[in-house]
Amino acid sequence: MKKNELLIELEHVAAHKITPQQAANKLSKTDFTELNYAKIDTAREKRTGYSEVIYGAGKTAAQICGIASVMKKQGQSILVTRVIPEKAVKIQKEFPDLDYDAVAQIMTLNPKKSVHIGEIAIVTAGTSDIKVAEEAAITAEFFGNHVTRIYDVGVAGIQRLFAKLEVIRQAKVIIVIAGMEGALVSVIGGLVNQPVIGVPTSIGYGSHLNGLTPLLGMLNSCSAGISVVNIDNGFGAAFNASMINHLAVKEKIK
Amino acid sequence: MKKNELLIELEHVAAHKITPQQAANKLSKTDFTELNYAKIDTAREKRTGYSEVIYGAGKTAAQICGIASVMKKQGQSILVTRVIPEKAVKIQKEFPDLDYDAVAQIMTLNPKKSVHIGEIAIVTAGTSDIKVAEEAAITAEFFGNHVTRIYDVGVAGIQRLFAKLEVIRQAKVIIVIAGMEGALVSVIGGLVNQPVIGVPTSIGYGSHLNGLTPLLGMLNSCSAGISVVNIDNGFGAAFNASMINHLAVKEKIK
Amino acid sequence: MKKNELLIELEHVAAHKITPQQAANKLSKTDFTELNYAKIDTAREKRTGYSEVIYGAGKTAAQICGIASVMKKQGQSILVTRVIPEKAVKIQKEFPDLDYDAVAQIMTLNPKKSVHIGEIAIVTAGTSDIKVAEEAAITAEFFGNHVTRIYDVGVAGIQRLFAKLEVIRQAKVIIVIAGMEGALVSVIGGLVNQPVIGVPTSIGYGSHLNGLTPLLGMLNSCSAGISVVNIDNGFGAAFNASMINHLAVKEKIK
Amino acid sequence: MKKNELLIELEHVAAHKITPQQAANKLSKTDFTELNYAKIDTAREKRTGYSEVIYGAGKTAAQICGIASVMKKQGQSILVTRVIPEKAVKIQKEFPDLDYDAVAQIMTLNPKKSVHIGEIAIVTAGTSDIKVAEEAAITAEFFGNHVTRIYDVGVAGIQRLFAKLEVIRQAKVIIVIAGMEGALVSVIGGLVNQPVIGVPTSIGYGSHLNGLTPLLGMLNSCSAGISVVNIDNGFGAAFNASMINHLAVKEKIK
Amino acid sequence: MKKNELLIELEHVAAHKITPQQAANKLSKTDFTELNYAKIDTAREKRTGYSEVIYGAGKTAAQICGIASVMKKQGQSILVTRVIPEKAVKIQKEFPDLDYDAVAQIMTLNPKKSVHIGEIAIVTAGTSDIKVAEEAAITAEFFGNHVTRIYDVGVAGIQRLFAKLEVIRQAKVIIVIAGMEGALVSVIGGLVNQPVIGVPTSIGYGSHLNGLTPLLGMLNSCSAGISVVNIDNGFGAAFNASMINHLAVKEKIK
Amino acid sequence: MKKNELLIELEHVAAHKITPQQAANKLSKTDFTELNYAKIDTAREKRTGYSEVIYGAGKTAAQICGIASVMKKQGQSILVTRVIPEKAVKIQKEFPDLDYDAVAQIMTLNPKKSVHIGEIAIVTAGTSDIKVAEEAAITAEFFGNHVTRIYDVGVAGIQRLFAKLEVIRQAKVIIVIAGMEGALVSVIGGLVNQPVIGVPTSIGYGSHLNGLTPLLGMLNSCSAGISVVNIDNGFGAAFNASMINHLAVKEKIK
Amino acid sequence: MKKNELLIELEHVAAHKITPQQAANKLSKTDFTELNYAKIDTAREKRTGYSEVIYGAGKTAAQICGIASVMKKQGQSILVTRVIPEKAVKIQKEFPDLDYDAVAQIMTLNPKKSVHIGEIAIVTAGTSDIKVAEEAAITAEFFGNHVTRIYDVGVAGIQRLFAKLEVIRQAKVIIVIAGMEGALVSVIGGLVNQPVIGVPTSIGYGSHLNGLTPLLGMLNSCSAGISVVNIDNGFGAAFNASMINHLAVKEKIK
Amino acid sequence: MKKNELLIELEHVAAHKITPQQAANKLSKTDFTELNYAKIDTAREKRTGYSEVIYGAGKTAAQICGIASVMKKQGQSILVTRVIPEKAVKIQKEFPDLDYDAVAQIMTLNPKKSVHIGEIAIVTAGTSDIKVAEEAAITAEFFGNHVTRIYDVGVAGIQRLFAKLEVIRQAKVIIVIAGMEGALVSVIGGLVNQPVIGVPTSIGYGSHLNGLTPLLGMLNSCSAGISVVNIDNGFGAAFNASMINHLAVKEKIK
Repeated sequence: MKKNELLIELEHVAAHKITPQQAANKLSKTDFTELNYAKIDTAREKRTGYSEVIYGAGKTAAQICGIASVMKKQGQSILVTRVIPEKAVKIQKEFPDLDYDAVAQIMTLNPKKSVHIGEIAIVTAGTSDIKVAEEAAITAEFFGNHVTRIYDVGVAGIQRLFAKLEVIRQAKVIIVIAGMEGALVSVIGGLVNQPVIGVPTSIGYGSHLNGLTPLLGMLNSCSAGISVVNIDNGFGAAFNASMINHLAVKEKIK
Repeated sequence: MKKNELLIELEHVAAHKITPQQAANKLSKTDFTELNYAKIDTAREKRTGYSEVIYGAGKTAAQICGIASVMKKQGQSILVTRVIPEKAVKIQKEFPDLDYDAVAQIMTLNPKKSVHIGEIAIVTAGTSDIKVAEEAAITAEFFGNHVTRIYDVGVAGIQRLFAKLEVIRQAKVIIVIAGMEGALVSVIGGLVNQPVIGVPTSIGYGSHLNGLTPLLGMLNSCSAGISVVNIDNGFGAAFNASMINHLAVKEKIK
Repeated sequence: MKKNELLIELEHVAAHKITPQQAANKLSKTDFTELNYAKIDTAREKRTGYSEVIYGAGKTAAQICGIASVMKKQGQSILVTRVIPEKAVKIQKEFPDLDYDAVAQIMTLNPKKSVHIGEIAIVTAGTSDIKVAEEAAITAEFFGNHVTRIYDVGVAGIQRLFAKLEVIRQAKVIIVIAGMEGALVSVIGGLVNQPVIGVPTSIGYGSHLNGLTPLLGMLNSCSAGISVVNIDNGFGAAFNASMINHLAVKEKIK
Repeated sequence: MKKNELLIELEHVAAHKITPQQAANKLSKTDFTELNYAKIDTAREKRTGYSEVIYGAGKTAAQICGIASVMKKQGQSILVTRVIPEKAVKIQKEFPDLDYDAVAQIMTLNPKKSVHIGEIAIVTAGTSDIKVAEEAAITAEFFGNHVTRIYDVGVAGIQRLFAKLEVIRQAKVIIVIAGMEGALVSVIGGLVNQPVIGVPTSIGYGSHLNGLTPLLGMLNSCSAGISVVNIDNGFGAAFNASMINHLAVKEKIK
Repeated sequence: MKKNELLIELEHVAAHKITPQQAANKLSKTDFTELNYAKIDTAREKRTGYSEVIYGAGKTAAQICGIASVMKKQGQSILVTRVIPEKAVKIQKEFPDLDYDAVAQIMTLNPKKSVHIGEIAIVTAGTSDIKVAEEAAITAEFFGNHVTRIYDVGVAGIQRLFAKLEVIRQAKVIIVIAGMEGALVSVIGGLVNQPVIGVPTSIGYGSHLNGLTPLLGMLNSCSAGISVVNIDNGFGAAFNASMINHLAVKEKIK
Repeated sequence: MKKNELLIELEHVAAHKITPQQAANKLSKTDFTELNYAKIDTAREKRTGYSEVIYGAGKTAAQICGIASVMKKQGQSILVTRVIPEKAVKIQKEFPDLDYDAVAQIMTLNPKKSVHIGEIAIVTAGTSDIKVAEEAAITAEFFGNHVTRIYDVGVAGIQRLFAKLEVIRQAKVIIVIAGMEGALVSVIGGLVNQPVIGVPTSIGYGSHLNGLTPLLGMLNSCSAGISVVNIDNGFGAAFNASMINHLAVKEKIK
Repeated sequence: MKKNELLIELEHVAAHKITPQQAANKLSKTDFTELNYAKIDTAREKRTGYSEVIYGAGKTAAQICGIASVMKKQGQSILVTRVIPEKAVKIQKEFPDLDYDAVAQIMTLNPKKSVHIGEIAIVTAGTSDIKVAEEAAITAEFFGNHVTRIYDVGVAGIQRLFAKLEVIRQAKVIIVIAGMEGALVSVIGGLVNQPVIGVPTSIGYGSHLNGLTPLLGMLNSCSAGISVVNIDNGFGAAFNASMINHLAVKEKIK
Repeated sequence: MKKNELLIELEHVAAHKITPQQAANKLSKTDFTELNYAKIDTAREKRTGYSEVIYGAGKTAAQICGIASVMKKQGQSILVTRVIPEKAVKIQKEFPDLDYDAVAQIMTLNPKKSVHIGEIAIVTAGTSDIKVAEEAAITAEFFGNHVTRIYDVGVAGIQRLFAKLEVIRQAKVIIVIAGMEGALVSVIGGLVNQPVIGVPTSIGYGSHLNGLTPLLGMLNSCSAGISVVNIDNGFGAAFNASMINHLAVKEKIK
């Protein structure tokens, strides 16, 4: 609760515009919708600039439909991440409005189509990292950002990266997605003057440890200006990049 | 090498303004100064917006002086991180220009004093995290950012955080520094609409694993919009935050 | 063997009320029932206040039926945890008395229905943690406790937690169940004056390490008064909470 | 802020007993004292039943004195944990009121001496675990609990445990402290009907991993009713046990 | 090659009983049978007292049949470990002589039936550990040892162990098999005067880490006289125990 | 870009043999072919002596066909690793030219058949390591090396190794492939004067940690002259060995 | 308590030879001596064949003297392990009877000198492992075993091992001590028909992980018949070996 | 023992040139010198091309002098690695012939000065890696290789690497030494056609895990042709590189 919000209500009470009970209700109103299995944070967009996102991995199709149903009624945009194809089929039966992207495994309703601004570059080291990259790309587009995709420019053939460097440098913020040892993040970090967000992927085997190796590598990058999100977390990187991009173009999402 | 830079030189050669050998020298010039033990990246500021930073931990006092000496001659600003007091004494004997901050363990020369812009909030969970926070704060100030320090507002007494929330929300970007379990990052992440950079610290014991516990915690935050840097890496967080802050106020450091 | 139990028998022998051999048999009696594959601890309820619980995960349907059959004949209450649906079907074919809860994956017979006392609050951070929460809830009810369920109040939308705080504070003991980074435990721990039992869940991905991340986080909580059980161990948390709740209401289960 | 607290103030405003500004100040009052390097949570005792505890490990002697000085002025009891002898000497020079226990490495002022209630049993596996046990014991006594110490009854000589079992069973709650493999926790857990709090210690070598081995062992105990705190965290165990003990004797600390 | 073996041949050569070439062939003979995919160590029994054992897990049914076929022709006893049921069916089609034990997942031919000696006690903490125990038991019997099975006497109901202690003490060597935290090993180790071999099992969940927890626990046991084998390695424990048992009864297997 | 390459073009421009734009295009030509999902590094053979290899594990059958199709048109040799049988079937439907080896799980087109040189010894500890060994062997043969296979000579029957030592010593470089504890690498390393490349395999169980155990073992070998590649990385070992072998016979692959 | 011991006392009571109270005292006698900080297990020798051993690492000099003093009065042999030189000096001041071995860091009083039997071979891979080997050797001699030391025969120069093989084979049981990768254990295990006890040492660096690497290696040995103790645990290996050796020569220590 | 060596001796025996006992002695001669604490492998140079190297870290000054003394008498070259300055002083007092390099912490006697051949490039990412690089460089020179040092060309300023690429490409084999995330290895691996040996260093902090991060990174490099040695193992890399270099120039060290 913000201080001035409180003061305003107190003055209304002092002026007898509203009763103490009405003010109490208003000030202590629970800013969420309660379902049996979920409390939907309907104030999040106001508070953080972004509506609640549904993490699909741990929820049943029925639960996702229930939550989406509430959000749709409230006129919110809907983004559901980590929806495997079988679950998507079940959801679309009950909720045909939700679009499904099978590569990114994301469902959406009413993304912010018309206000795309700025530029987020999404760069991958290999072809195998594209799944995570698309999760990032579709998320970024959902939140109203322009996205440039530059895929498969890993350091084993570094001339591919140099050929794309000028394109990459036009972005406000750069997401770099890499499995194996994740070296691409450090190389790009040393060549640009934008913030770089590293996304390690689980692509590898043996001592790759399902992505811990590039995660540790990115956290210990010799290039400054790099921050990191969880393994395969294309969504998180895009969310973060969107915040930065919107700061950069002075257009905060309301 | 940028494409148009190449084309310009080629045209000069075609016009016989310069000889092929002169053009070759110019185009292949090595943008660094070579010492016995170091190659100082004198082009970094041009390339990334930031001059080279000297990581003091792995270098002798003599090596630091040697590198700083070259950079000073080139008129560069100098930032040396991770300098323990004993080493600082040795360095200042030979190089009295370098200021030393004993809490942050940073030495500086000619920071960008006059152009401080925007606002970076640096928040710590506890008193013990201040050392890392000051590394971040002094780095951020060195690179020309305003800094707001909000220390010791961890979630064990969450009313302290709420009392400071309006101040925190005025920043362009927020650095959250926490040891123990690092929960403060998630709580702040859920309450603001700016990018949050988490810095886990090595403050804790036992299963804290010297900071791996808050590092893992921050990477798995339930709040979106959070990215993470290495344990105790106040410098890295500030560098990243500076890039974002400068993007946000449309004043790139040259 | 308790000292006075021994003395009583010795006096009976001295008084020739029973023969030495009878006393020896009585004193060295094995307080368990022996099957081919199990030794059922029939004295546990007397010793610890709780009858033996069958851990279903490592046992065949036939073994579970065999053990349950012995316990039923002895008039004991039966709780079988970690029974997957396919196994439950097999068991119910042979043993239709056992009720099955498909969310909690628990089978029960004759829970302590009438003597529910006190109050245990079971709080989850997300919808995905409900499976573990129900294992805790049904276990707690089986052992005669009142349970209040407060689900999906994670710190990403912290106003949801504050709205439920008064309800939570009415419990004698609080179980907090969270995946991701597990920050909810620290936040609640800082706001209440009851013991809090943290249950990390395996909900997450990448560096979540199947629950090690929230486990480590909870063990390193900056709030005091928190203890922790194994990942996904809803049963263990409820068992522990039941002991505390019964202490608190001065009604030990016999 | 509690709902009825808000309503009361609103009614006072409506009745013009206080001005809106006065009510606003009162309702949004920050319940902490602000120092340069710390925000002392002066409302914690009211909120959680326990005053703030100073974690000494990460603070300078000067910082500890500063915080203690504020707390003393407010009439609070003071407990400082993890104070190594050298730091204790420095502190006592400036702040002679603070008592120091060299085994437990704890400093105290005004513990709750007169209201000791209930009984907490503190059991160790070995002689080497006593340091942690004393941290627990002095903490528990500070918060007004009776403590029974039972040291060096590890399972290598299990008859020692059985000889003390009746004493242990008289406690309301049992703290078991063990290094090596931590087996004592499981053995006691199987023999009592009180909640058991396990404290793994860092006593061991090689694959002991500084206490991770008994920590993991206790979390995976085959006995139910056990919860665990961080390695060497005698303080945390005692804090938790104190909450349970006070619940059990129906005397909450105010 | 043993020294006297060499000397004997040299003397035969000096005496012209055999030619140098014959002696060279004899002395450098390769003591194994070569297949395309395996080199069967036909000298192992002579060298170590035990014939080669076929580790079934990494081999195809065809490879197992090929190796077993060679060994059968040479009159060797055959033991194949880690054969899952599907593979066993395939093998028995081609090689019906091989007996299959579905619990232990072991195939055998011509075990040393008549010369069983000494006594190996195989003790498990729970019912779920029986699979590993049977791998140990059948291996031990295959190599000519008497085996006593004592299953499900874990420390959660320690009176079960005490009831069986006299039986356990009659063995020459004791194998203790336990999952969870593996505490049973330490308790038995403190009560007997025989060597104890600990076998951690993968029974558990969460921070059990697939058996690493009891493995670490057993390696750090507070009881002396304990050695440990790999997780679930019933075979290895039995092999080791057999060597000790045969030493103890002075009857080496030939 | 090599310096003299640049100078030559500059002189051509000065001599007006080509226009500045033509020179610019030539000098900045992107040495790769761009597909939607991949950038094929067509300059790799020129740069590193080896054409690009397709890592099949993270790609769809369609992607592999697309890349192979481009490479075939350019007359390159093709090697696809880690192709599981189901995927191989799909690929061969569309691209019947590609041969498939089901043990090595490798597809090839136009390996360098006629120029096999030198000798690479590939040694395995067990039968179960053959899959990885064949990945190495077929890769080595693809790149024009002679290969000697010596399988199943692990140290449990060390006479098998000694019998093959002279054959092993004839190679220019030795690849040693071992699971379990990987001791074979150290033993061979102590007996030969060639470089030894260790390949740990994922063959084992329990504390084998899917190959981390032999990986760590090989990295810590007491024998000098050993280097190591990732777990199960037969391809990487063969690639490295091929480079060494070709150096040794003074015949670089062009 | 053994059953017949109980029966005998009961019959004495029935025959009125002793009073019930006397029998109760006798049967429930606590078989340990209680100090302030320790409970000395005076029954251990009777129960396990070996007197209590004092683990010196976690105890003060004063505590060690206190315990040793009690044991000496009871006529027990004394073995104190892990005593660093500084502590040994303090102890010998108060307790000059205790001999100190500076390599093994062991103190002893009254070892079983006259009854040395059998033969334990103690083999090390390198010179650096001798410290652990001497801990084992002196422990084994203390408990009445003959010891053969064979040091520095690691597999990098395997002919050294073969030269000593006949000596090694004369032992009843073999302790193999190795750091680095620990391969020596597997090689010896494949060449002998005695039980082998592996002791990993902390000798190594980098990915050696302070001994975890050879520990894991030994647990995964491809040779059967090997069991393992904790890193650097020369004492534990010797204790175990002593039990086996005494079994083998049919002379149990009383 | 080689086959033909055996045959020759047998024929000598058959021809009565030598007695059977003389032949036996000759054939079973132990190829090492035995000290109290070490068995010096005097045959290693003959067997592997390289004399024994003394690993200084785990040995006392006295032991190093003893071993060096034997080797000097036998006319062997001597290389002692990992000698800290204090130990070097002690050694040089007794053994002034040994040269000491304080950066590399290596002592040498009679390196192969005159026969330096080929070229090994030693490349470091940073200034802090020089210590490990010098261990490699001096080792390589000791074994008769030319060495080119290229220090501080990490990827944060990648133009430094490109400026040195032609020099690097002139080597037969390349050692790349890097801390932080170790990305330099992958970048170089993608640009050259020589074998690359990666050496991770312990330079870093926090999640760097003392070098595990670059070790894992190098093992998972996206560039082929890379093999890896232990953290900080400059010696091992140089030893391996020397073998390859000598193969390449067809001049084996005898």
